Amino acid sequence: MWDRLITDCHVATMVAQPGNPLGIFPNAAIGIDGGRIVRVGKRTELAGFRAREVVACGGAWITPGLVDCHTHLVFGGTRANEHAMRRAGATYEDIAKAGGGIASTVGATRAASADQLRESARRRLHALMEGGVTTVEIKSGYGLDTAAEMRLLNVAKAIGREEPVRIVGTLLAAHALPAEAKEGAARDAYVKMIAEEMIPAVARAGLATSVDAFCETIAFTAQEVEKVFTAARANGLPVRLHAEQLSNQKGAELAARYKALSADHLEHLGSAGARAMAAAGTVAVLLPGAFYALNEKKKPPVDMLRDAGVPIAIATDCNPGTSPLLNPQLVMNMACTLFGLTPEEAIAGMTINAARALGLAHEIGSIEAGKAADLCVWQIDELSELGYWIGMPGPARRMFAGQDA
Amino acid sequence: MWDRLITDCHVATMVAQPGNPLGIFPNAAIGIDGGRIVRVGKRTELAGFRAREVVACGGAWITPGLVDCHTHLVFGGTRANEHAMRRAGATYEDIAKAGGGIASTVGATRAASADQLRESARRRLHALMEGGVTTVEIKSGYGLDTAAEMRLLNVAKAIGREEPVRIVGTLLAAHALPAEAKEGAARDAYVKMIAEEMIPAVARAGLATSVDAFCETIAFTAQEVEKVFTAARANGLPVRLHAEQLSNQKGAELAARYKALSADHLEHLGSAGARAMAAAGTVAVLLPGAFYALNEKKKPPVDMLRDAGVPIAIATDCNPGTSPLLNPQLVMNMACTLFGLTPEEAIAGMTINAARALGLAHEIGSIEAGKAADLCVWQIDELSELGYWIGMPGPARRMFAGQDA
Ligand SMILES: [Zn+2]
Ligand SMILES: [Zn+2]
Repeated sequence: MWDRLITDCHVATMVAQPGNPLGIFPNAAIGIDGGRIVRVGKRTELAGFRAREVVACGGAWITPGLVDCHTHLVFGGTRANEHAMRRAGATYEDIAKAGGGIASTVGATRAASADQLRESARRRLHALMEGGVTTVEIKSGYGLDTAAEMRLLNVAKAIGREEPVRIVGTLLAAHALPAEAKEGAARDAYVKMIAEEMIPAVARAGLATSVDAFCETIAFTAQEVEKVFTAARANGLPVRLHAEQLSNQKGAELAARYKALSADHLEHLGSAGARAMAAAGTVAVLLPGAFYALNEKKKPPVDMLRDAGVPIAIATDCNPGTSPLLNPQLVMNMACTLFGLTPEEAIAGMTINAARALGLAHEIGSIEAGKAADLCVWQIDELSELGYWIGMPGPARRMFAGQDA
Repeated sequence: MWDRLITDCHVATMVAQPGNPLGIFPNAAIGIDGGRIVRVGKRTELAGFRAREVVACGGAWITPGLVDCHTHLVFGGTRANEHAMRRAGATYEDIAKAGGGIASTVGATRAASADQLRESARRRLHALMEGGVTTVEIKSGYGLDTAAEMRLLNVAKAIGREEPVRIVGTLLAAHALPAEAKEGAARDAYVKMIAEEMIPAVARAGLATSVDAFCETIAFTAQEVEKVFTAARANGLPVRLHAEQLSNQKGAELAARYKALSADHLEHLGSAGARAMAAAGTVAVLLPGAFYALNEKKKPPVDMLRDAGVPIAIATDCNPGTSPLLNPQLVMNMACTLFGLTPEEAIAGMTINAARALGLAHEIGSIEAGKAADLCVWQIDELSELGYWIGMPGPARRMFAGQDA
């Protein structure tokens, strides 16, 4: 006797089968018990099983709950003013040099109380959940000192206790250099503090499951990132990297050398980087919201990633400056419309490959026995509509560990 | 004693005042009676008035209900397959010539029952309403014979009877040439039938309040559009035009000669067209969803429209081929991000200027005494957030003629 039997649905399990890359079962059923999937198959195959509750879905499509594997969701203020600057021709670099960009959010974030941060993040989180997100990664990176970074990760963790969604914390102290430590010895000291103080403290407190960095001319050099990655490894935390967004810094190769879970953005990725990522099993996380909001012209090399065999994930990159994006379904459409992904690649990008980017592919991202019963029930006729509609409504029904919410 | 007093809010009335183009009242109140606005002003000014119900909005922002002044909401099928064709490099013209495009939707629409058309359109309408739309224009144009065009307008009208939203019907028989009438005498006969049969029948039945056409190399010539417009005028219906979307056909000048309510798309508008529109009072309706979905590079000349003094509206253009867009807030963001409108222009574009494009500026589109009490209550701190967030959630509360729905 299971807790729930979901029937009268078509299921995209995301477990690839020959000729069926999304592992689709038409006319399927899903058995759920103790918050986990216990069986999925053709409706007829599950006909003999009983459950305390039968949920008939009226022919809807079911996918795994969406996984938003790259967000900066906890921050103070907004950056609506930079919209105007960009329309007047300023680039992302111009804005950063003018003291805007990440630095202005660091100021607003440090000034906000933990309650303010939690409530504003929660509003954004609810928008993502409405869109079908059941797991959200949240990066720090607007604190830039040990206490402030840990406060952000604690806020993220507190939200996770209050909401049914799964929250995954990432330490991104190497997001920007603090205004007081842009050059010289102060700069070196900041990198040293990340490596010797922040990473050990965050690891000890269990506040993050990975360490991220931003490798770019306006952020950290490859040499600095290596110091951060070395410390992460010493503290048992896997790494990720904001790489090749505005220029090719060979960040993908660097990430691959450290067996990074993912390298993210990648507009300026070269073929050596793609090959290195494939060999290391590093996921490419593409972020079309930032490409769109920054009016970028150079797309990430999707064909190169496909040819190299790099798994592709996509995410909102929700952040106040370069991607104030609150709609995960729109990410799937943007990935198709702006980057040329197929709808199938877009769906995999927000489910199984996003789970891989978080190191959670054993737990979420597909519909198979043993995994968490995080599910979206979509009122659509064709699965490809998930990549087709622009800003479509969220799923009719969402389940977190088998429970509606 | 009024029906309702809305308080504890900031109001963007959209009634321009010197130095205050959106007519903003901070700390305002709105009186509603009999479904209409009876008074709006500072909270203190309305303190002496009584109402059967006081609605305290907790410091939210209130705008007029959004007006989506250009949609093709009633259609059969989807066109998800054309997404793939476009990613493979096909242009909109290529697809049209290959029998795809509008023609494929005409086939699916003719094959669908009225019930199917109504239910699928209603799902899309609900998405727009969730986003704050209180008035939706719906064009025919997927029937292409008298009975089929009138059936679409009847479906639109039926939805309007069942839903609180205001539906405005537009006859767009000159949307595409039927497959059987692409050239020669059959083509002439189709245009003649629009002028002599469809327009009089639709006018008599009260199914549309304006007549639209598509002036383009892949659609109708300026000479053919003139025949349609002449008939519209003879039957007392104002006109609108899909103009200069893919090339400059001098459609804006043509529209202005017939005192059109609007000319729509306008990516290829020239300065003579802009001046003619300004002189005629013709609204420019910009459609960023189609620009986005078609990966167009040529933006409408926004500075030219501003300099000429042409009012700018924006809309979803919701249609299955070139703009399957279901999110009116996203239109405001796209207008800013892709076309460079200011947030203020984007908000005016979905309220007062959209009302002008429908000939309904006396009734909707602003918050002033005498107009319908169609309102959106937004949970935002700054009004400019309406142009800033990408795919933000809809308003916390919507009122149609003073009633929540
Ligand atoms: Zn990021
Ligand atoms: Zn149109």
